[in-house]
Amino acid sequence: MCMIEDLATGRVLVQHRLPKATNPWCGLTFPGGHVEAGESITASTVREIREETGLTVSNLRMCGVVEWETIGERKDGSPAEVAANSKYIVFMFRTSTFTGELKSSGEGRMEWMTLDEMRQGGLAPHMEQYLRVLLEGGVPQAYGISGSGKLEAIIG
Amino acid sequence: MCMIEDLATGRVLVQHRLPKATNPWCGLTFPGGHVEAGESITASTVREIREETGLTVSNLRMCGVVEWETIGERKDGSPAEVAANSKYIVFMFRTSTFTGELKSSGEGRMEWMTLDEMRQGGLAPHMEQYLRVLLEGGVPQAYGISGSGKLEAIIG
Repeated sequence: MCMIEDLATGRVLVQHRLPKATNPWCGLTFPGGHVEAGESITASTVREIREETGLTVSNLRMCGVVEWETIGERKDGSPAEVAANSKYIVFMFRTSTFTGELKSSGEGRMEWMTLDEMRQGGLAPHMEQYLRVLLEGGVPQAYGISGSGKLEAIIG
Repeated sequence: MCMIEDLATGRVLVQHRLPKATNPWCGLTFPGGHVEAGESITASTVREIREETGLTVSNLRMCGVVEWETIGERKDGSPAEVAANSKYIVFMFRTSTFTGELKSSGEGRMEWMTLDEMRQGGLAPHMEQYLRVLLEGGVPQAYGISGSGKLEAIIG
């Protein structure tokens, strides 16, 4: 996941994420996605940003990681995206370096917003905690149980 | 992996790592180990440091991650520690906050050394690149092929 900042306007690039059949997670979030086999974490972030926003980003700064411990299937019975008893890690990046022309994708409409506008517009689940990791100094790590919908703890 | 610094003496806590039957990696390194199921990355680092050094560390600062792409078995035919076509991620921490009395473990003798003494004493393979991640600002990421013994690239 990457928070792209426009230093000229003080806005960040927000995705109005739509729910999918395989993943009901939706609401206001930042663009990002999954690492493919053989791909580095940074390269996958640059690729996903390009696919979802049309922008090419660089100078990514990692603000921390969010760890989820996955235990079997989701509570709603839908297939979990990750295997049982594995760790699902979200790498949190931010950057203010980008080129290209903004476009949206099937993942959701993209819009420049202030952080206040984003918070008041309906954040995706857990985005408030993700924002803490992105905005605070240091490297906090969040640790929770995927599928329970509850963040267990945030440790410094 | 965690670089523990003694700010009073300017030394870091080095492990004279011994080779194992399952892992021939040896030489001068920093203490650390593997995350267990259900354990957070930070908690596993604190546990491994306690087991290998007797010290209790806190205020860990993550300096970056080193990614290895694993492709099948090691070249020497020994069993790989990780599954084929998976990512092996080393989380690089540093701290100068610790309590307790120094002791060594079966992993190798512990010794306070300057970085110069460590570099001249015979680093474990890839430790020079790991030191770059620990000592440089920002969050560099290294990306390589496990088993080939060759670091393919380091990307910012």
